[in-house]
Amino acid sequence: METETRTEIIEATNRALCEHGYAGLTMKRIAAESSMTTAAIHYHFDTKEELLNAFLDDLIERFEQKLDCDASDPRERLNSFLDAVFSPPEPDTEGFPVAIMELKAQSPYHTLFRERFLDLDEVMREVVTDIVKDGIEAGHFEETDPAEVARLVTTVSNGAHARTVALGEQAEETRQVLEHTLELHLGWTPGSEVIA
Amino acid sequence: METETRTEIIEATNRALCEHGYAGLTMKRIAAESSMTTAAIHYHFDTKEELLNAFLDDLIERFEQKLDCDASDPRERLNSFLDAVFSPPEPDTEGFPVAIMELKAQSPYHTLFRERFLDLDEVMREVVTDIVKDGIEAGHFEETDPAEVARLVTTVSNGAHARTVALGEQAEETRQVLEHTLELHLGWTPGSEVIA
Repeated sequence: METETRTEIIEATNRALCEHGYAGLTMKRIAAESSMTTAAIHYHFDTKEELLNAFLDDLIERFEQKLDCDASDPRERLNSFLDAVFSPPEPDTEGFPVAIMELKAQSPYHTLFRERFLDLDEVMREVVTDIVKDGIEAGHFEETDPAEVARLVTTVSNGAHARTVALGEQAEETRQVLEHTLELHLGWTPGSEVIA
Repeated sequence: METETRTEIIEATNRALCEHGYAGLTMKRIAAESSMTTAAIHYHFDTKEELLNAFLDDLIERFEQKLDCDASDPRERLNSFLDAVFSPPEPDTEGFPVAIMELKAQSPYHTLFRERFLDLDEVMREVVTDIVKDGIEAGHFEETDPAEVARLVTTVSNGAHARTVALGEQAEETRQVLEHTLELHLGWTPGSEVIA
């Protein structure tokens, strides 16, 4: 499949999913969001599950790009990570966190979704583990268990996502609580300016 | 409505929801889980939304009972709270966390669900806030912001729930991380034995 075709189908899936939700997602509605016919989409993706698997794969890739930070200072990298994770969704993608929540709820019934969410979790935890390790080595952070801090950050971000959807709460509220807790772990306040 | 009838309908809703999920929940399936006809259930609850609202209300009430702890020592009350929140679901209710996740994903479209999840969140945060306040006053915990600790605990438990459903992870893993973090906030290790 050409990259352009794949991108077009995945973007159409994203729009259809945000608008109609998982239960209302059909090949017809995905086609309506693209310049392609349902037959053409079916040619590339046999099932809705395969299509959503590609959508989640693409999501993880974009998330990794968003986390790809030029800074070398682990404190700046941590700030960038928190920006990426806790930035509010763009106004046109309000349905997006809801759609992801629906896919998570489908995860026990779809091995492919489960695998993608495990991949995403691993990416997040690895990035934070590396940042904390590097920060300790550079003497910016106090001695602590990097893998445990990574698990805390990832779980809190999972919680923030659930709160956004279920309670309509801004992720910013959770970010503040997390930053204060990270201060206790790291001896450095995330969100504060980094002076080299 | 008599309490018995209400209880029977809510328990049938719980079973039907755990088995068929939110999308597959119909009055017919709820009736099949009870001794009542769909007409009789409709007589008490006009819509699926009203029925699920009663189901969530009942859930909150049972959760409050579960949290009702005889102990007076705030450290014991904290341990009981963590037991209640992080105890794995009974084998016959594996579908339960998934069903709750689905209802959370429906929350943006159903004011009643949103209100119930906000109620549940308030209950959890109030209980933890009180425990932390009392523990500081009694000299068991270090000075800290009780409301912020409560928000952290509640958000981490939201995250643990999402991880159980999306990743198939045991909540116990999250509990350990939370306990280590609470140690930093409180100067006391939750889960450790309380010696009066």
